[in-house]
Amino acid sequence: MNEADLILLPDKGAAKSDLIDLRRAICDHALTGPVRVVEFAMPERDAAAAYAHAVDDWHAAIAAQWRACIAEHLPAGGRLALLVWGDPSLYDSTLRIAERLEAGGQPLRVRVVPGLTSIQLLTAAHAIPLNALAGAVTITTGRLLRAHGWPGDADTAVVMLDAGCAFEVLAPQGVSIWWGAYLGMAQEVLIHGPLAEAAPRIAAQRAELRARHGWIMDVYLMRKEQADAK
Amino acid sequence: MNEADLILLPDKGAAKSDLIDLRRAICDHALTGPVRVVEFAMPERDAAAAYAHAVDDWHAAIAAQWRACIAEHLPAGGRLALLVWGDPSLYDSTLRIAERLEAGGQPLRVRVVPGLTSIQLLTAAHAIPLNALAGAVTITTGRLLRAHGWPGDADTAVVMLDAGCAFEVLAPQGVSIWWGAYLGMAQEVLIHGPLAEAAPRIAAQRAELRARHGWIMDVYLMRKEQADAK
Repeated sequence: MNEADLILLPDKGAAKSDLIDLRRAICDHALTGPVRVVEFAMPERDAAAAYAHAVDDWHAAIAAQWRACIAEHLPAGGRLALLVWGDPSLYDSTLRIAERLEAGGQPLRVRVVPGLTSIQLLTAAHAIPLNALAGAVTITTGRLLRAHGWPGDADTAVVMLDAGCAFEVLAPQGVSIWWGAYLGMAQEVLIHGPLAEAAPRIAAQRAELRARHGWIMDVYLMRKEQADAK
Repeated sequence: MNEADLILLPDKGAAKSDLIDLRRAICDHALTGPVRVVEFAMPERDAAAAYAHAVDDWHAAIAAQWRACIAEHLPAGGRLALLVWGDPSLYDSTLRIAERLEAGGQPLRVRVVPGLTSIQLLTAAHAIPLNALAGAVTITTGRLLRAHGWPGDADTAVVMLDAGCAFEVLAPQGVSIWWGAYLGMAQEVLIHGPLAEAAPRIAAQRAELRARHGWIMDVYLMRKEQADAK
C-alpha cells in the first residue's frame, strides 16, 4: 500500500458504510507516507436484469469510474492500488475489470498481493480442516447450490455469495455445517452443528444480524458425515 | 510465534533440508524473544502400505513425537506453536494430529492463525481469478484426478498433492493449465498454456527441477474454455 501513488476506495452507500469505514481505518493504520486516497461512488448491479447482462453492465460502469479516477489523479501514469476483501482470486471482479481497462487501451501491468480468503478465516475460527482426509472440496455459490443441489460427489462443499440460506434446499440428514459471518471483524459470529438442527438457528441469527448491522457477509462449509472415514 | 513457549520444527531429512532451512530462517527473522525452538525427526509415511492405513500409522507416529517433545520441553504445560506451510486447512494433518493428542488425554486448546495457501500464491503469481465468473471450483488431489478424471461438472479444477503430472490422464482439448512450483520461494517457476501444449513442458521442467533441488512442491489450476462465457 505504501508503494502506491493512488488508492481507490469504493463507496457503497450509507447501508454499507461499515465497509468503507474499515478500509479508511486500514489506510490510516498502514500508510506511513503521502499516498493519495480517493473515494469513488461504487456503481450498483441491476438486480432486475438477467444475471450475466447485469454483471457485464456493472463491470463496465466500475471500469468507467476507475478510468475517470486515473485520468484525474494519475494523468501521467503511476501505481494504483485497490484493496480487495479477502483475496482477488475468489468471487471478485477486480482482475476482470482490470482486463477491461487493458482491452480498452489502458496500458497496465497487474500485480496481485495474495490475501486471506473468508474460507481460511472460517476454517481457522472453527479450527477445522477444509478437506476431509484426502478428499476433494467444491467451492460454489448460493445460486448454484439452489439450482443444482449438493455439488456432485464432493465430501465437502463451501458456499459463498449466498444471499439467503441456500442450504435450506438440501436434505439435511448426514450433513454438518460450519457457518461464520463478519469473519475477522469485531462482529464475528460462528455457528456449527448438524444441518437439521443448525439451519433454523443460522436463518434466524442471519436475519437478526442483517437487520442490526444493515448488511451481512457470511460463508459456510458443509461436510457429509463419514467423509473422513473413507 | 513470539507468544509461544515452544516451537517444533519437523526435520524431513537431508533431501528436504531446504524446507527446514526455510523454517529456521523464518524463526530467526520473526522471533524477538527467548522462544525455545526444537527440531524433531519427522516420521515418514509407509509408501508401500495401503493409503488409509499408512496415513493412520503415520499420524500416530507424529503424535508420539509431539508428545515426547511436550513431555521434555513443556512438562508443566504452555504454548506450543507449529508452523504449517500455507494454511492448516488444506491437505495438512496438523489439526487431525492435535485431535489425536486430545483423544489420548492431552488437554489442548487449539488456535489457528490462518495463512496463505499455495492456491492463492498460484493465482496471484499468474494474476488470474480462481473461479470462472459465478462458477464453482473443485479442489482435488492428483490421486483423485487419476482415479476419476475431471471432477464432475466443475469449470475449474485445482490439483494438489500430485506426485507426478496426473493431468496427463485428461483429454487436453479445450483445457488450459496454470502451473507453479516452489511458489513464494526464490526458486518459483510458472508455466501457463493450453494443456495439450503445456503438459509436456511441465512434465520435463518438473523432472529437471526435482532432480536439481532434490524435492518439488507444485500446484496447478485447470479451466475449461468458455467457462467464463457462461
